Amino acid sequence: MKVLLVFAHPEPRSLNGALRDVAVRELEAQGHEVRVTDLYADGWKSEVDRADFPSLTRDERLVPAAASKKAFETDTQTQDVKAEIEKLLWADTLILQFPLWWFTMPAILKGWVDRVFAYGFAYGVGEHSERRWGDRYGEGTLAGKRAMLIVTAGGWEEHYAARGVNGPIDDLLFPINHGILYYPGYDVLPPFVVYRVDRFDESGFESVAERLRERMRTLATIAPIPYRRQNGGDYLIPSMALRPDLGGADTQGFALHLEDGGAEASRKTKIA
Amino acid sequence: MKVLLVFAHPEPRSLNGALRDVAVRELEAQGHEVRVTDLYADGWKSEVDRADFPSLTRDERLVPAAASKKAFETDTQTQDVKAEIEKLLWADTLILQFPLWWFTMPAILKGWVDRVFAYGFAYGVGEHSERRWGDRYGEGTLAGKRAMLIVTAGGWEEHYAARGVNGPIDDLLFPINHGILYYPGYDVLPPFVVYRVDRFDESGFESVAERLRERMRTLATIAPIPYRRQNGGDYLIPSMALRPDLGGADTQGFALHLEDGGAEASRKTKIA
Repeated sequence: MKVLLVFAHPEPRSLNGALRDVAVRELEAQGHEVRVTDLYADGWKSEVDRADFPSLTRDERLVPAAASKKAFETDTQTQDVKAEIEKLLWADTLILQFPLWWFTMPAILKGWVDRVFAYGFAYGVGEHSERRWGDRYGEGTLAGKRAMLIVTAGGWEEHYAARGVNGPIDDLLFPINHGILYYPGYDVLPPFVVYRVDRFDESGFESVAERLRERMRTLATIAPIPYRRQNGGDYLIPSMALRPDLGGADTQGFALHLEDGGAEASRKTKIA
Repeated sequence: MKVLLVFAHPEPRSLNGALRDVAVRELEAQGHEVRVTDLYADGWKSEVDRADFPSLTRDERLVPAAASKKAFETDTQTQDVKAEIEKLLWADTLILQFPLWWFTMPAILKGWVDRVFAYGFAYGVGEHSERRWGDRYGEGTLAGKRAMLIVTAGGWEEHYAARGVNGPIDDLLFPINHGILYYPGYDVLPPFVVYRVDRFDESGFESVAERLRERMRTLATIAPIPYRRQNGGDYLIPSMALRPDLGGADTQGFALHLEDGGAEASRKTKIA
């Protein structure tokens, strides 16, 4: 396999840095090729702005989606963005690794998504008709590839459980897993999440490292999250509403978009 | 009222820029004081990094939460962060305005949250005991103040409905409304969301502008989203799980954290 790991922590001597090294070493030990984008080390620019679109004339109004489309089509993206797109096309597996800050990714990683996931590349792909609403949610440029998150959180696992005060971790990560990764076509694997990371001692670290190694060994085989395909018949066009006969009467929220109609999520709730 | 509007669009001549002007003018017409933080115009720095903590010694490991705590306690935060905290303490109402990019805020606004919402200010506040788990989710430094989002989206409203393919807009915004705004104490008002913003003509704009003016007139009176208070007895300590007798048997996901047990969310589902 070819694996791209995008790393978003400012301190290499952090738990995140140590876990990244564990993941990379295990993948290489398995014979995989690994490339790492280290956003802080690279001095990644986080903001979408005029500098991203060199072909924009001085007085031209910046319309981000239109400018993104034009830059991708005319090959006038900036060099840093082109390099990341090349890596995404090279890799068959993408890993995003980050500390959970305010229940989502750090700004620098969001800026990687905002700038690299260009119109015509990651969105605005495919035809819109009575039978299809673009190539997205299971189809698209990155279809056939796998993606997963490695996330560290300061809070307790219980606080992210089905009925925990923060909200369920799977729902908090849905805008990323479904909205950012599944959207351009990735098969999204269950995330690897570590909790209470401020309290780690050496034996705690070794047990997490071993869990992570195991996940790295099953990267090619583990079943993806069973999100519904947009153009597979489950959604009405053009409202893109889930068909009334699907999803189950007692399912609501993000769980509706799982193929088993949220049965798994509901089961989790009952266990917890 | 004193209103702080934090604006996160790179183009002043955009729909977002026009809506910001509409909001500010209406608020001023009502006699309110308004201050605007224009993140792009200010050249806001999005990344939490060593430069944020001038008192960190050269070889010291950067632990973001610990460094944030120390900088806040010792008054060694950078000037840009101090200025924003001063504005947050000044304002009794906070508005965050942004285009929805990849189902959440642009990187530059996330960077404002990551850097300004310091340890000791927006989190890490209050005691942990058998009766309280810190001052958060309805309590905290910013309690008694109101906050709301103004959001523009390219997609169709139907796609963000209860059963729409993107997921319900209220759930997509939950990590922001509940996790970023309610967490440090704000009463969070229902968001103002505009859809299909790439297709606007003049009459379309005027009708949205009038809706926005109306929302600005009711800023002080509209009922906040009824999130449950963490320390009000609804959650078990220390698991912070919602009490088994609350939330309703058929409620799951984020709707559990609404005081009416998701009745409203469930009602919406049935209407849609």
